[in-house]
Formats: sequence, C-alpha cells, structure tokens
Amino acid sequence: MPLPQEFHDIARRVNNWGRWGPDDELGTLNLITPDVVRAAAATVRTGRRIPLALPLRQDGVQTGAIPGRGNPLHTMVAINHEIFGPGTVATSDDTVTMGLQAATHWDGLTHVSHSGRLYNGRPADTVTAHRGATALGIEKATPILSRGVLLDVARARGTDRLPGGHAVTPEDLEAAEELAGTAVRSGDVVLVRTGQLRHYLAGDREAYAFPSPGLSVRTPEWFHAREVAAVANDTLTFEIFPPEIEDLWMPVHALHLVEMGMLQGQNWNLEELSAACAQEGRYAFLLSAVAEPFVGGTGSPVAPVAVL
Amino acid sequence: MPLPQEFHDIARRVNNWGRWGPDDELGTLNLITPDVVRAAAATVRTGRRIPLALPLRQDGVQTGAIPGRGNPLHTMVAINHEIFGPGTVATSDDTVTMGLQAATHWDGLTHVSHSGRLYNGRPADTVTAHRGATALGIEKATPILSRGVLLDVARARGTDRLPGGHAVTPEDLEAAEELAGTAVRSGDVVLVRTGQLRHYLAGDREAYAFPSPGLSVRTPEWFHAREVAAVANDTLTFEIFPPEIEDLWMPVHALHLVEMGMLQGQNWNLEELSAACAQEGRYAFLLSAVAEPFVGGTGSPVAPVAVL
Amino acid sequence: MPLPQEFHDIARRVNNWGRWGPDDELGTLNLITPDVVRAAAATVRTGRRIPLALPLRQDGVQTGAIPGRGNPLHTMVAINHEIFGPGTVATSDDTVTMGLQAATHWDGLTHVSHSGRLYNGRPADTVTAHRGATALGIEKATPILSRGVLLDVARARGTDRLPGGHAVTPEDLEAAEELAGTAVRSGDVVLVRTGQLRHYLAGDREAYAFPSPGLSVRTPEWFHAREVAAVANDTLTFEIFPPEIEDLWMPVHALHLVEMGMLQGQNWNLEELSAACAQEGRYAFLLSAVAEPFVGGTGSPVAPVAVL
Amino acid sequence: MPLPQEFHDIARRVNNWGRWGPDDELGTLNLITPDVVRAAAATVRTGRRIPLALPLRQDGVQTGAIPGRGNPLHTMVAINHEIFGPGTVATSDDTVTMGLQAATHWDGLTHVSHSGRLYNGRPADTVTAHRGATALGIEKATPILSRGVLLDVARARGTDRLPGGHAVTPEDLEAAEELAGTAVRSGDVVLVRTGQLRHYLAGDREAYAFPSPGLSVRTPEWFHAREVAAVANDTLTFEIFPPEIEDLWMPVHALHLVEMGMLQGQNWNLEELSAACAQEGRYAFLLSAVAEPFVGGTGSPVAPVAVL
Repeated sequence: MPLPQEFHDIARRVNNWGRWGPDDELGTLNLITPDVVRAAAATVRTGRRIPLALPLRQDGVQTGAIPGRGNPLHTMVAINHEIFGPGTVATSDDTVTMGLQAATHWDGLTHVSHSGRLYNGRPADTVTAHRGATALGIEKATPILSRGVLLDVARARGTDRLPGGHAVTPEDLEAAEELAGTAVRSGDVVLVRTGQLRHYLAGDREAYAFPSPGLSVRTPEWFHAREVAAVANDTLTFEIFPPEIEDLWMPVHALHLVEMGMLQGQNWNLEELSAACAQEGRYAFLLSAVAEPFVGGTGSPVAPVAVL
Repeated sequence: MPLPQEFHDIARRVNNWGRWGPDDELGTLNLITPDVVRAAAATVRTGRRIPLALPLRQDGVQTGAIPGRGNPLHTMVAINHEIFGPGTVATSDDTVTMGLQAATHWDGLTHVSHSGRLYNGRPADTVTAHRGATALGIEKATPILSRGVLLDVARARGTDRLPGGHAVTPEDLEAAEELAGTAVRSGDVVLVRTGQLRHYLAGDREAYAFPSPGLSVRTPEWFHAREVAAVANDTLTFEIFPPEIEDLWMPVHALHLVEMGMLQGQNWNLEELSAACAQEGRYAFLLSAVAEPFVGGTGSPVAPVAVL
Repeated sequence: MPLPQEFHDIARRVNNWGRWGPDDELGTLNLITPDVVRAAAATVRTGRRIPLALPLRQDGVQTGAIPGRGNPLHTMVAINHEIFGPGTVATSDDTVTMGLQAATHWDGLTHVSHSGRLYNGRPADTVTAHRGATALGIEKATPILSRGVLLDVARARGTDRLPGGHAVTPEDLEAAEELAGTAVRSGDVVLVRTGQLRHYLAGDREAYAFPSPGLSVRTPEWFHAREVAAVANDTLTFEIFPPEIEDLWMPVHALHLVEMGMLQGQNWNLEELSAACAQEGRYAFLLSAVAEPFVGGTGSPVAPVAVL
Repeated sequence: MPLPQEFHDIARRVNNWGRWGPDDELGTLNLITPDVVRAAAATVRTGRRIPLALPLRQDGVQTGAIPGRGNPLHTMVAINHEIFGPGTVATSDDTVTMGLQAATHWDGLTHVSHSGRLYNGRPADTVTAHRGATALGIEKATPILSRGVLLDVARARGTDRLPGGHAVTPEDLEAAEELAGTAVRSGDVVLVRTGQLRHYLAGDREAYAFPSPGLSVRTPEWFHAREVAAVANDTLTFEIFPPEIEDLWMPVHALHLVEMGMLQGQNWNLEELSAACAQEGRYAFLLSAVAEPFVGGTGSPVAPVAVL
C-alpha cells in the first residue's frame, strides 16, 4: 500500500530539505530566532501562567492500543530513609518507567519515516536499537520558547468538542485565527484546540482515543505558508481517526516531521487556556515548552506553560 | 544522632509553616506572583536562549552510589515500523526508565523529611509506596517561570571551579550578587554556580560526586531574607561533601524543603550561562524551569532555559 | 473492618510460627527434605516435560486493575549490533520492566501481612521502600523442586472450568485426590486446577479476572493437615471473587503466607498438564518451580515444569 | 574486519542447520529426549538441591560496560497497603527493570548473529525493535531439564580459579571429565567451572569482568562431537578476554548460538556445586534450568538448580 500521489504532491510543496543546509537537524525550529523570542516575551501582560501538561500517572491517556507506549509507572525506591542513621535527615526517592510519547509530549523528528527517509533526507536506519536516533534526536532540539497562538477551532465553531472524525481544515484554522484576533506569523508555535481531551478529562479514555478529530492533510501547507515553528493539539495521535483519506494513515506526521522538519505535540491540555484566552480576549502569549534532552529520543514528555 | 541545636536554631528562623495557610502545598512558589512573572518577561533583551539541562543518557551523572537512582535507560520499542503495512508511514517509539532525580532536576518538597515531618507540618508518612507523595507531590508545583539570577560564585572568586568541600557562604553570595549588578528580590529563582559540574563535563563522574562544594548551612537564612522562590546549583547533591559540620548530613535539604518549603535544583549546567552573562554583563534573565507533573513525585527532571 | 473471628479461629489452627525455630524464613519449604526430593525424582516415568508458565508478554494477564502490577514490557537495547566493527559477530540485547507477580509467579511470604505481622511474627515494617523485604524475601526460598500433585477439581467435577465465584472446598480437593489416585503427602506441591485460565487462553482477560473461582477459606486447614509445601492454581488472584465471606478479602493469602508460611502460586497454566495426567492416568510427577532470587522480592516470576 | 578463515572452517564442522528440519527453532535442545530426561531423574541419589543462580540485586555483576544491560532495579509499588480498608489484609507488591542477560542467564539463539544470519539460516533482521526476536525467541525453548555434568576445570588443574585470559581447551574438558568419572553424552547440559566468579563473590566486579578465562574456539567441536544440549559457565561473557585470537571477538557465541543452535549460560555460580561434587565424588546430577518464556527474548534470567 504505497503512499498515494496526493500525498506526494503535498509533500513536494511543503518540503524543507536543504532549506537550512544539508546538515540541519532543527527544521522549523530555525524559525524561532532571537527576535521572535524577544517579541514573544513582550506579549506577556498579566503574568498569568497556565500549565498545559496532563498529570503523569499510571492512569494516563494510554489504553494499551499502542504497543510499548506505556503510561508512567512511578515507583518509590526509598521512603523517609534515614541514610545516615536514626534521627538524621530522611530521604524519599523515586523512579519512573514510561513511554517518551505516553503523555503530553513532542514528537521528535525521528518519530516517523517514510520511503526510508527522515527529515532532510537522512536515512531512516540511522535510528538504531542500541543508540536510538543517532541523527535528529530530540536532544538536538533548541529550547522551544516562542510566541504561542491558540487556534481554538472548537470555540470558533461554537462547540465544546469537535466530533470524532472531524477534519480540521485550513478554513477552520482561519476562522480560529480570526477569533484569536492575531495573524499567525513566522516562528509561532500554534496550539490547535479540538476539545477532544474533554473525553479523557471526563474519565473516558476509550472515547478519547477513537474516533478522534485531527488535522486535515491540507493543513501542513497552511502551517508551511505561515512559517509555523511547531504545532500541538489536544488529541491522542494528532491525526484524524478514522483517517480522512481511506488507507492513508498518519499523513500529517509524515508531512510535518519528515517533509517539513516540524515538531508536533499531542495530549496537550488546552481547556484552561481556552477559557483564559476567551476571558482576556487574546490568544497569543509566551509559550515555554522545552523538550527533555533524551539522547537519541524520538520524542519527549513536556510540561508546557502559557504565560498571558 | 539527632540533629544539633544549631540546626534547630536556624530552622526556627527560616520556617514558613503556616505562612501561606495550613493547607499550602506550594511553599515559596507562592512568591512567584503574576507581577513577578511579568517583570521577569520584561528582562528579556536579546532573546538568546540558553539550555541548562544535561543530556539525558545512560552515561549520566549517577555513579551508582545513590541506590535506586539510576541514569536514564532509553530503549526502543519500535524502529521504522510500518504499522499499517509495507510502504506506509513508519514509526519509531521509545521508552525510558530513570530516577526522577537522576539528572538535571528539582527536588520536590517531599524529597526529605526530618523529625517525621514534611513542609507545613505534614506527617512524613503521607509518602507511601503505592501512591508516592500523597501531599506536596511535585505535581502540585505551579509552573516555575520567573526571573532567574545567576550568582556566579566561582567567577566572583576568580576561579573556574570552587574546590571540593568549599562552603558557599552568604558572603560568597553577596560577592556574586555584586558581580551580577542586580539585587536578588522576592520571587527570584537563584542559580548558584560553583563550577563543580566541569568535572563531569570533563568526563570524571567520580570527581564530580565527591568531594564537592555546596551551600553552607548559613545560606538558607540569606535566601529566606531575600524571599527567593527556588534555588538551583551545579552539583550532584546540592550540599557540601564532606559535610560542613561533622555528622550533620543534608542540612540544607532539610532547611529548604522542610522548613521553608522551597524547591531546590541540582545538576544544572551553568557553564554556557556563565559565559553568556559575563559577556553581556548582566546576570538576570527570564528563567523557565517547569517540573514534569509526576503525580506523587518527590522530584522531577527538568529542562530549564534562560532567556537573556 | 477488622478480620472476623472465623478468620482468627482458622488462623490459630494452621499457624506455624515457631515450628521451625524463631528465625525461620522458609516456612513450609522446610517440608521439602532431601528424602522428599529423592522420592519426587523417582516418580518420573516417561520423561515428558510439560511447561506450566504463561508466555511473558505485554499482552499478558494483567488488566491494569492491580495498580503498579504491569505486564512485562520487553524492549530491545541492541539489535544485531556489530560492537567490534563491520563484519564481526553482532549482538542483540534486551531489557524488561515487569511486576514480579504479573504473570505465572510465586507469592513470596512478604506479599501480604495482617495485624502488622508477617510469617513467624516478624513485623510488617521490615518491608521497606529502599530495600524491599529485609526478612522473608523471595531470595531466601530454597529451590522449589519436589513431588507435584495435580488436583484437577474441574475435571473431578466433570467440567472444563468451574464457574466464577465457585469456592473450591476440602471436599473438592478430596474428590480430585481420588481422581488422582494418590494421596497428598508431606512436602508435596499441590496444583489446584479450576480451569479459569481458559478465559485468558480464549482471549478474554476481563472474564479471567472476575468473577473467579478460588480456594475456600476452609482449604488451608486441609493443606496444613497434609503438610503441603506449596500450592498453586490457575487463577489471577488465587482467591474467590467476589469473596466467599462478605467483606473478607484475601483470607487465604493471609492464612497461607502469614500464618502457615506457605508460598502460593498464581496464573499457572495447568491445561496441558491436565490433559497429560488424564491420558497417562497419573497425577503425580516431578515438579521444578524455582523462584528467581530477587533480593527483597515479595514474589517472583517462575517457569515451572512438570516431568511425568 | 571479516571473520577469519579459521572461524569459518570450524563453523562448517559444527554446523547444525537443517539437522532437525528447516523450521527448527530448538537446535541442540532437540537432544534432550524423554529418555534423556528419564535417565537424568535417575541420577538423583541424595536429593540435595544446590542453587546456581546469583542473587538478583542492583549490586549485581554488571559494571555498566555493556550498554543497556543493567543490573536488576527492584522497586516497591505497594507496602503493607490495606486495599480493602483499615484492619484488612495488607499487600506489598514490587516491580523490576533488568537486562534479560544481566545476571545468571541463558543466551537465547538470537543473542548473536554473524554474516546476517541466525541459527538454521534465518535472517538476522527477524529481530525487530517492536517485537524482539520473531523467530528463535527464548520462549520457544523447551524446558531445560536434563542431566547436568560439572566439568570442574579449575579443580582438575589444581586451582581455585583459572587465570584471566586462560583458554579452556578440549584437553582441559577431558581432564575435568576424567575427574568427573563420567563421560559426557548426548543431551547433557555441561557446566564448565573456571572459578572466575570468585572475583565477584569476593566483591571485585571489575576483576570478574576482565581479564577472564573462557572457552577456547576449539571447544565447540568437542561439544558438537559429544552432542551436548547446552553449556554454561561461571564468567561474565562466556568468552576469553582478551580474546584467544587477535581481533576475533565472541567466536564461541557465534559457533554455539548461530552454527550449532546451542544455548549457552553465563554468570552461573558453580562454587557450592564444585564443593559438593568433590565431596560426594560424583559430578553428574539432575539439572533444572528452565528459561523464563519472554516472548521475543534474546535471552532469559534463570535460576538453575542441581539435584544430587
């Protein structure tokens, strides 16, 4: 089942290979320039901080349907242990086992490949079992701190939650941009709210997983045209399930990560942010969402914060 | 070996129990007000971002001397796996097992107890094996984004690295503050540079671990007086090893975490930041260092970034 | 909800504390004497080996209902890696994260406590977060190799699988003993087949978990009288669910592990063995079921084998 | 650095590909027939059981030199937790993360490949990140229970411990066989004692790791001629370090696992067994050493027991 021509046509139009040199491992993070960062800091008005990460817990969003991607297993290795003898200061310590993409996370550039290639034409087999991603690993990402813009598609469409299977289109994004009252610009990190996470927040993991709204295969061109640095949303897989085009699975992953070299985020909790933006009447803010530098990682948990 | 009277005297002077109400779980993070955040954003001038986290790797700073606190073990669970059949988009996925305090991290408020108590007088036995920290867990921390101030004690003393065993005193902090050209103020996150991490960066984990400079038992009063929100440094355990006062182990942990309710960070890489601050002639910046919200966690890895 | 008088009455009758001395950590494993082992070896006639362990896989018997007890997560850390250069011998290596009691396993003596006590009167708080079971850990168990006797209760009752909630009684055991054609004797390891595992083997983990047949609170006295060394069955929790006596949860665990000091096994696959015993007309065999010596472990995965 | 002609010559002489059919996944385990098992049981005389596994602990034999192969990290997920309310039966539960080949273990047939091939000619790329060994996985191994023979080379040479770098030759094996007073025969599992483990038992992990005695590249022919079913020894890597033939690394792995389809074991503690065999004047016994059936595993921890 090769990828259809339609995919390849879009791929050609959004491709960034070579754009920042043959050795580039940053992709669209190159768009977050010092000027962009400075302007992002200048968006802060009230100083209100809104966290966007889900709590990391064993009862997280993973249902077991994605093999090997386990919810965090947090275990104690010491509890009030008086290392230096009775009456001394006691320590507690803990450890975790988790999928790097199990919770609120960034997909790294090596999370997917197609046709044997990763971003910038690197061979897919640079990902190895003993070293992970030897190129384009998540540890190469520069700190993601830029202007964030919430494109609240659900709110713009007058709903709390888009229906499962809904394809968020460029038109949806533009309607949300109009609601936002600001134009998306080069270096922005765009947060697309579908409201799908409300299923999980209401205790229904299965409904959160499937069916799901997601980004249409037509949206990468829109992000490409606006020179977006990264995109995140509030769904489990980022994509539309069941897929928008029959038998075309994960096309947006392939376009963002492989063709554009653009990180994408999933399982972001945009509910409080949505309410705050609506309340303050502004949808742009300082966003800090720095990936943990796992060497060879194909992704990373992240604890993003929006500062209004 | 009970804690000496000297410890208890200091403890009484820095104690914050009840200061923010009997149910408070934030401690000195309460000091990071919206106004503080807004002012922090306003410190950004060049938009230069400097990451402060060590790469997360199996060859990390842990030597095995702290039982159960293992360096990150990163393993692949899928490599270019064509889930939906040959020729489709292929995915790579990975997992990690690591101590929450194995690398660049925040100590959570439950990381230590003394005399059976945690911050705000909560009983130490609220930390349990099956649920971790049921009070004061790291997931309760608000997003740590504030003004950061580098107190470059090593540089202020004209050295690259303080000697092992050196006690950083309030006088050292004030000399570094003078170098910084800015007064530490309420809500600041203070980064204390000893240069000790240079051992690790040079490949010598053992020398990094021991002997180590660290913060004198006299410094918590200084942080308390300045209303500092959190403190981090560039050592393995934060403390002086061998200890400043014979048989008094981890006093600063107990004062910061238990008495003051103040998070502290370890294994922060302050080398690039030190050079940048010296070059730009300013030592205050926007700092984003958001803990991962591990439910019940006694700490969290963190990927801090300073924005100059 | 204290334990009822009925429990305490049985507990007194089966109690083995002090029987093998005040420092004993073996419990009924003391009953596996060299003579017992020698006689067990002498039961071998055909030399046919029948494995009794479930495959260790992520899609194992755990449903997530027991917090922290995860199915095995098996990940590769190297795949055909030519460590010593191209053309040399290549190695693959792997790692696992799993609950010690997640699959076919032995409950160790510290797996449960009641009234603050473990077997032989040891305090329950000898189990600690940083060292696990400091007494009675699974590593103390001698190698479990003895005569095994299959008590095929399902077959004796003329069914493939006992109904959920069925209490296996001493009378059931005796009917199965009659079917077996051999009397259970001192040092035997008894395998009680309910047929419940057929749910899991048919792909229905939820039905396997609940409701479940199990051993009646009246059976420990029977095992005690026969001087059984250990007991295993083919259910998830060993016990009857919902419980035989309202609000009395896990009484058999408490009687076997705490009062008698007798290991018990769960998730044993007795299906092939059942067919073989019926075919050969004998239900006694050499059983090897050696626990992995996890230091401080409260249990251990085991790969038992019956030799007919 | 291709494998030398000498290797290929030996490989041709010991090759078992096709011997048990083109689809065989058992290799020399085929040699453990029911008759062999029956005869093995008949060797039991005193009923004395001797465990051969090292305790599984974080302070195990791994030094960190083999990336990703970590000592067992054992953590508690519940300690005396009264699930069903105060006063009820309390449970403790635990979890482990460990390399499958970290401690006393069997190398599975997929642990090494050479020239792109595994045993029986299967392609090496049947080992994948998401499923592990899709052919020849350790879960395919039949229960290893057979006659064991201790070839106590150290004792036969009149020493406690062979020197580092010593190549155990066929002549050494025959001298030990003579000491044993029994001829190795078809289906036997041979345990070769070098005494090297005494370094670890004395607390010196580094000396245990290197330099090490091991089996000469000439011994696989000897095992092949005797129709040995499996071989284990008391060293970290099984092989001689530094290597017997310059730049020929892990030749015995390649001959045993790939060419012969013979499992091999490492880190077996043969010290108590050595003393017992010498004392009783016999070196053959019933050996039970059943691998844990990790699906897709390239190896497995094992808790072997010898029954004299």
